Amino acid sequence: MRRWNGWGDDQFNLELPKEGQRFLDERVGSAVPLADVSLEQVCAQVPDSRLPPNPACIGAAEDRVRHARGQSLADWLAMRSGDFGVFPDGVAYPESSLDVQALLQYAEENDVALIPYGGGTSVAGHINPVDGDQPVLTVDMGRMNRLIDLDRESQIATFGAGTPGPLVESQLRALGYTLGHFPQSFELSTIGGWVASRSSGQQSLRYGRIEQLFAGGRIETLKGTLDIPTIPASSAGPDIREMILGSEGRIGLITEVKVRVTPLPAHESFHVMFFPSWDKARTACRKLVQNRTQLSMLRLSNATETETQLALAGHPGMIGLLESYLGLRGAKDGKCMMTFGVTGSKRQCRNALTETRELCREFGGIYTGKKLGEKWAAKRFTMPYLREALWKLGYAVDTLETATDWDNVDKLLNQIEENLRNQLNEKKELVHVFTHLSHFYTQGCSLYTTYVFRVADSYEETLARWQTLKTSTSGIIVNNRGTISHQHGVGKDHAPFLPVEKGELGMLAIGSLCQTFDPAGLMNPQTLVQK
Amino acid sequence: MRRWNGWGDDQFNLELPKEGQRFLDERVGSAVPLADVSLEQVCAQVPDSRLPPNPACIGAAEDRVRHARGQSLADWLAMRSGDFGVFPDGVAYPESSLDVQALLQYAEENDVALIPYGGGTSVAGHINPVDGDQPVLTVDMGRMNRLIDLDRESQIATFGAGTPGPLVESQLRALGYTLGHFPQSFELSTIGGWVASRSSGQQSLRYGRIEQLFAGGRIETLKGTLDIPTIPASSAGPDIREMILGSEGRIGLITEVKVRVTPLPAHESFHVMFFPSWDKARTACRKLVQNRTQLSMLRLSNATETETQLALAGHPGMIGLLESYLGLRGAKDGKCMMTFGVTGSKRQCRNALTETRELCREFGGIYTGKKLGEKWAAKRFTMPYLREALWKLGYAVDTLETATDWDNVDKLLNQIEENLRNQLNEKKELVHVFTHLSHFYTQGCSLYTTYVFRVADSYEETLARWQTLKTSTSGIIVNNRGTISHQHGVGKDHAPFLPVEKGELGMLAIGSLCQTFDPAGLMNPQTLVQK
Repeated sequence: MRRWNGWGDDQFNLELPKEGQRFLDERVGSAVPLADVSLEQVCAQVPDSRLPPNPACIGAAEDRVRHARGQSLADWLAMRSGDFGVFPDGVAYPESSLDVQALLQYAEENDVALIPYGGGTSVAGHINPVDGDQPVLTVDMGRMNRLIDLDRESQIATFGAGTPGPLVESQLRALGYTLGHFPQSFELSTIGGWVASRSSGQQSLRYGRIEQLFAGGRIETLKGTLDIPTIPASSAGPDIREMILGSEGRIGLITEVKVRVTPLPAHESFHVMFFPSWDKARTACRKLVQNRTQLSMLRLSNATETETQLALAGHPGMIGLLESYLGLRGAKDGKCMMTFGVTGSKRQCRNALTETRELCREFGGIYTGKKLGEKWAAKRFTMPYLREALWKLGYAVDTLETATDWDNVDKLLNQIEENLRNQLNEKKELVHVFTHLSHFYTQGCSLYTTYVFRVADSYEETLARWQTLKTSTSGIIVNNRGTISHQHGVGKDHAPFLPVEKGELGMLAIGSLCQTFDPAGLMNPQTLVQK
Repeated sequence: MRRWNGWGDDQFNLELPKEGQRFLDERVGSAVPLADVSLEQVCAQVPDSRLPPNPACIGAAEDRVRHARGQSLADWLAMRSGDFGVFPDGVAYPESSLDVQALLQYAEENDVALIPYGGGTSVAGHINPVDGDQPVLTVDMGRMNRLIDLDRESQIATFGAGTPGPLVESQLRALGYTLGHFPQSFELSTIGGWVASRSSGQQSLRYGRIEQLFAGGRIETLKGTLDIPTIPASSAGPDIREMILGSEGRIGLITEVKVRVTPLPAHESFHVMFFPSWDKARTACRKLVQNRTQLSMLRLSNATETETQLALAGHPGMIGLLESYLGLRGAKDGKCMMTFGVTGSKRQCRNALTETRELCREFGGIYTGKKLGEKWAAKRFTMPYLREALWKLGYAVDTLETATDWDNVDKLLNQIEENLRNQLNEKKELVHVFTHLSHFYTQGCSLYTTYVFRVADSYEETLARWQTLKTSTSGIIVNNRGTISHQHGVGKDHAPFLPVEKGELGMLAIGSLCQTFDPAGLMNPQTLVQK
């Protein structure tokens, strides 16, 4: 069953190997975990629903608890401490666009705020209800989870917006197709959520971001139904798809999503290459993407992430052998690990692999074959479970991500890491920080930084530490040519930083769009735009 | 010097070979040209300017004549007959964003309508002034034509918005780079115009549409300056770039454009393949693009276009030999010509060529080498001059274009061609119609239809015939899953058809955006949105 207070399936537990524990103990210090509350304790706190009666709205405490929070570290601390703050007043589970239309009408007639809920995997506060006089109804799209149509000639599939990643892929694969969209949250997040928050998947180099995959669909708004037709490309004015992408529930509720799919590839494999230094590794990655080498996936860990991953992997014997070999080839301290994938016809994969190996050789790249790549592929969606394992040992872990142009990658990366590393100095607490680059464009790339720190002796103080880390770094990002989010969206947590990125007139444009479709402020209020 | 009443440089004339004349005579009948008016005659008609005095605004008749019309067939007929209707009241030639700001202030203070003018190549009435009480000032961006900055690491170039195609490429090529954006209008159209009208270039398979190339820039609006920062990709809400792309002057005047550039490729070549039938040819093209073969350019002429191109090429001896060879290989009547390009590293080009030849062989493709491809490349920007040559023989020529999903390509193509072919039946006039597919996506492609008919014995009747052809076909396009424009934009000519494509709520979104930035209706009124 799904964990009510953390990530994923409660039958799946990731254990941190002894070597990993020792490594964290060295880097951050030994830690004492905080105690968790039970689901029953939280349910007992849930206040009476303020919703006017509607048989489509469930007011049961457990439904409301399970829909109150996403997966940010602040959400995690709320779920573990029981200090939820606000609960939605009810949850609806529509099964059709008509059901959604009825909910919109109900909301309008009764001044009820609506929060669209896909997989509940937001790490930016998209689905958290806010305190106020309006009753709040969370609309869980999970029952609209079917493949509705597949046009094999045009390679377009139509899905119910609440279809989660595994159901997207299994329904397509049964017919010989794939969407190829694999965000870290794949196990739980939904196709409608991907569109609403402009997500990006691990194989974006081949399949593109959700912007490239989203071909059209249906959005139910307070002004009526917005049907976006599928057209391969158009110069007929601003693209309505692009207004829905990233709209985060402010314009309407996405009920149907049409996406561009691909026949299952003939070949796919993942590989690992090590580089003796960050400079060489980063330059090689930039050259690969600027050379338009047909890779499907590329990820470059900086030296600290490389070291951390090798330490946390367990298998000290095997890792020792690998490190000896790399050392002999010139990659010692400061070495960086690059993981890459090739997908397509056999010829395309062979050529891409050859091009990659040739180009990387110029930068001292040491190819280590498919073994570590296969390991990455096998574990690609299990990383979020690590938070549970670390939590039980007394560590809090969170991530921050952005994207910037190549000329600014190093500067911004150092600013982010340095700020996180030193932010708790006054508290005499260490923060372990590491980064990878994981989505590549000719113009720049994304930066994905993970940071680990010890929980304090109270939830309040732990939350305060996180807020310091998160807020100060978010400010650094937007003031230094980074986007406030490359793949997690804005939600409520990033909303204060959005105006720096978009500018006054950019916010005017977005605000007027929300206002046009939702003059009464019922649609996911305070998300994306702070008002 | 630039032709005042037609396309391009008046020193360049394309002659239609005898065989071409004979071909048209057979298909449409022999024709009698209409007489042209002179520039002096038109200048003499220009009324007094209604603009309040401003030294930045030139009221000279010739400037106003030269900025009154674009390049649609209706524009052509106006320029040749002298029946212009409306002239702008003046033309400004700003040299900086500050100049543009001053013009905006002047327009706001004096209720003056502003029309942004790039290369004046619109074929949809973007830059035509409309009749009304507001004085109209055309803002010619042509003096802002420099490469301002090149970031080699991030591969981003910054240009003045008025930079025309040849100056974009020559300034970049001097530094070893290319933008790779080659619309048919390349010789005259500008980088700002490409953004404002969402254009697409002949090598969009490699370089992408302008949407993929436009990285950010500066737009001067009545509400202030909108600076769009360059960020490789972002999930931070709706993308402001996408609101400017296709905004056609309704939001503001683009003054600076930042684009994603590429180092000059090591290799580039163009090739031609013939297919025995349309069905096989179209399927091969679809498979090539769905297979993600690294082509840079692809164009497929249907049987009538193939026949027409071979007839109009001249060189009957050489063409005769080619046709004999193709006939022996099984491609006779109904054969279709596919032109394709490969661009990139030598390995990429070699692989793409091999993949293409292998795949096409399955569909009866007959590869004829580089000769015809090189010819296409040499003449790629001269096609618009053909209108002048045909006009002198008494023929009017125009094009229509759209894009649709693969499952609808044939149906829509037949509807378009049939409608054009039969539209003048009552007048007992023949229309020669042919089509090519020229921008390919996994989901579908663009359809580009050319039609030739005889001019009538008056300009009025010729215009009326064109209106019948254009209006009826535009209606067919939007009512049958086509976009009203894949690459020419909306302007005033396509604006009546946009609501069918975008729907009521799509128009609400676009309209509210325009309204937000331009409540007084000064910015290119009646373009894009009819109000």
